[in-house]
Amino acid sequence: MQVKRYEDVEMEEVGEDGAKNVYIQWLIDEKIGKNFAMRRFVLKKDGHTPLHRHDWEHEVFVLEGKGAIVNDAGEEFSLTPGTFAYVPPNEIHQFVNRGDDDFVFLCMIPFQ
Amino acid sequence: MQVKRYEDVEMEEVGEDGAKNVYIQWLIDEKIGKNFAMRRFVLKKDGHTPLHRHDWEHEVFVLEGKGAIVNDAGEEFSLTPGTFAYVPPNEIHQFVNRGDDDFVFLCMIPFQ
Repeated sequence: MQVKRYEDVEMEEVGEDGAKNVYIQWLIDEKIGKNFAMRRFVLKKDGHTPLHRHDWEHEVFVLEGKGAIVNDAGEEFSLTPGTFAYVPPNEIHQFVNRGDDDFVFLCMIPFQ
Repeated sequence: MQVKRYEDVEMEEVGEDGAKNVYIQWLIDEKIGKNFAMRRFVLKKDGHTPLHRHDWEHEVFVLEGKGAIVNDAGEEFSLTPGTFAYVPPNEIHQFVNRGDDDFVFLCMIPFQ
């Protein structure tokens, strides 16, 4: 087994088009895991991921801060610590920080 | 997409042999998810899961409290909020509450 602290994992800025102030840590990646990855996202103030879709799902659990997930109709669903979300494959979505502090969540995805 | 609070999911006691004071919530189960489940575990004071193994892996992230994961040699690895763990398939393991408060973690597993 492997046991580690999230602080000990390198944090990288997400450079994807449409991403702003988004940082990612791959806590469990393909080198460790077997079927799915565990990533920790930090959206700094005014941060957001791209409004996009892809053919894999997200399983999300919110750890810190105040944010939202936006759908293709522009509707927002509030995300605070203890909220979890399932985004099916191919569904348009965007994560947005709606607070002054870091908005932090886990996001699991299957390996492709 | 589905967005929900963990408090809104039913909590069941785990009745498995060797489990004590263990409660589970299936946040994302087979009815919602596609490849893997998100479960929230609560180990009350003196609680522990069975010392066991199975042919699927665990991906764990600790949310609250103070606990440990024990391996087949009886070695303990401390688990506190922000610790994550990967338990490979077929590796013997046990989760134990080592504090006075609830020990709470997420545990993701692949669908069989």
